[in-house]
Amino acid sequence: MGRVSTPHGEFPTPAFMPVGTKAAVKGLTTIQLLELKTSVVLANTYHLYLRPGSDLIRRLGGLHRFMNWNGPILTDSGGYQVFSLSDLRKVTPEGVRFKSHLDGSEHQFTPELSMAVQRDLGADLVMVLDDCPHYPIAEEDVKRSLEITHQWAERCRRSELSPGQALLGIVQGSTYPQLREASAKTLAEIGFDGYAIGGLSLGESRELKTEMVDAAIQNLPEEKIHYLMGVGTPQEILSAVSQGIDLFDCVLPTRNARNGYLFTSLGPIVIKQSKYRDDANPVDPNCDCDVCKNYSRAYLRHLFISGEMNSAILNTYHNVHFYLRWMEKIRESIANNTFEELRNAVSSC
Amino acid sequence: MGRVSTPHGEFPTPAFMPVGTKAAVKGLTTIQLLELKTSVVLANTYHLYLRPGSDLIRRLGGLHRFMNWNGPILTDSGGYQVFSLSDLRKVTPEGVRFKSHLDGSEHQFTPELSMAVQRDLGADLVMVLDDCPHYPIAEEDVKRSLEITHQWAERCRRSELSPGQALLGIVQGSTYPQLREASAKTLAEIGFDGYAIGGLSLGESRELKTEMVDAAIQNLPEEKIHYLMGVGTPQEILSAVSQGIDLFDCVLPTRNARNGYLFTSLGPIVIKQSKYRDDANPVDPNCDCDVCKNYSRAYLRHLFISGEMNSAILNTYHNVHFYLRWMEKIRESIANNTFEELRNAVSSC
Repeated sequence: MGRVSTPHGEFPTPAFMPVGTKAAVKGLTTIQLLELKTSVVLANTYHLYLRPGSDLIRRLGGLHRFMNWNGPILTDSGGYQVFSLSDLRKVTPEGVRFKSHLDGSEHQFTPELSMAVQRDLGADLVMVLDDCPHYPIAEEDVKRSLEITHQWAERCRRSELSPGQALLGIVQGSTYPQLREASAKTLAEIGFDGYAIGGLSLGESRELKTEMVDAAIQNLPEEKIHYLMGVGTPQEILSAVSQGIDLFDCVLPTRNARNGYLFTSLGPIVIKQSKYRDDANPVDPNCDCDVCKNYSRAYLRHLFISGEMNSAILNTYHNVHFYLRWMEKIRESIANNTFEELRNAVSSC
Repeated sequence: MGRVSTPHGEFPTPAFMPVGTKAAVKGLTTIQLLELKTSVVLANTYHLYLRPGSDLIRRLGGLHRFMNWNGPILTDSGGYQVFSLSDLRKVTPEGVRFKSHLDGSEHQFTPELSMAVQRDLGADLVMVLDDCPHYPIAEEDVKRSLEITHQWAERCRRSELSPGQALLGIVQGSTYPQLREASAKTLAEIGFDGYAIGGLSLGESRELKTEMVDAAIQNLPEEKIHYLMGVGTPQEILSAVSQGIDLFDCVLPTRNARNGYLFTSLGPIVIKQSKYRDDANPVDPNCDCDVCKNYSRAYLRHLFISGEMNSAILNTYHNVHFYLRWMEKIRESIANNTFEELRNAVSSC
């Protein structure tokens, strides 16, 4: 267990970042995020660059003031969203050209622009621009992509940041362990304040993912923060922590909440199922969140079936609570030397 | 200024009820309703009868427990929703047949069924079933409709309620002052715990509405609560209070919030307008709600333009705060004998 210090406070790791793509965690006010003891949130450079624009956010005092979140924020570089959302993506050594998913307008992200945008946003933890290859992909293509990713990482490292902003490199390499190793070594040589592992959870097997995390992490400085991007289920997080990962983000607790999928200590609940129609029990009998203290499964089912927005609000509150308490449990088990017991208990479920 | 006592606490009047149609005020948790000092909420018999069913809510401990709201609740009778939402509405002396707007299934509300449903829901204030004529309508047709409304009112009065439930009659009569008078007198003779004025805000002029409220209220017992259904703007509420109205409900603060229309002390704001793009000011400089304390117009515009659900959440919070503080201001002016000054100040705006 460690701690990460930022200009907006420090937080203990392993930590989970609720996703606030467009400067808002969908369904939760920042007051509720504080109630839930959220320690750090993630926002998306790609989205905020396109709308409302990072210059506007800078003029309004930066992202923290804009979204009224005074705790730590991490912004990604936009590389992954260009890869997953935009049309006409064209990668050159200079940067990546793409069309906005909003209006089709053409843009180019260069490493320097991504840094400038993230400097404007003013997040505490910022990410290098990387090239995210699709999956599956031939080894030769990954090598070419990695060259660009590493050049961009260097250019990001040389770019100016705001005082206190920490820059994280991103290990790529698809599912080729030797490329993951090489990528980690190259980034470690450049030297970052932390290291992320990207380009996973794209459809590869769990075994391959585990192997790639190992290949990367064994070649990264141990004392720096390790961030596994876009992962994952509570079990995947636990497993990744055992490999040395400190930081996570994932849309699962928030997106699934909106789809009526609730995480509980007894396994997931799909709240629309008719068996919950007159179920007076809380979502999770072992949960002490305000939703579980105050509402029945029957009520939450009613809200979902009726299309009430309060369904998404209450479900999100519960799921984010579940994830944050899960991280707390993991941290406690590390502090108490009972982490292996926790892993065994979960894997035997 | 008066007070209304209910089994779930008392509240001062004039009061405004946020609308919680389907057992939820869209966008606000009950914790937030308490923060906003909401004193009483409204829920809809028609909607809850169809889904999830009032029997289910009764088995789960009643509406208060179901929606986790331990303050006073008023339920309407379903008459207005049958009129406004359902197909194939057929009124007979027995009751009103209609097709559900959800699945087309056929149902009949009788006065006795409406009372039974509201008994199951367990609201503190319940409404008689009434026939809501459309507007405009010939006087002869209103007379026929009123006969039914008055018969139904008697049958509701004879129906059994739960201990502590207060029953309100509903004055109808369209825009015919002599029919409004007659309706008020008939209902007063039957004797209710309070009296509502229904069938207004259907397109008639403001002058006609004012005249109808006067015609009704002058023939209702003064010491009982007077409720003007579905009204209205802050100005309309102020005007109706001057006529003797104590209780209001309206979807304006909540529905308009979802459409980006915000009430402020300086007049309404349509938050999507480009002039708010980089406006660092709060929605209302004279408002001390959590939204105005913490967020800029630029941020709220960004959320609205981006289609983020937090737009509806924060806008609703502000608008409901505005309405409830407006009622507070009216009550204070009555207590301080400055009500006429308040009216003059507003009408000169």
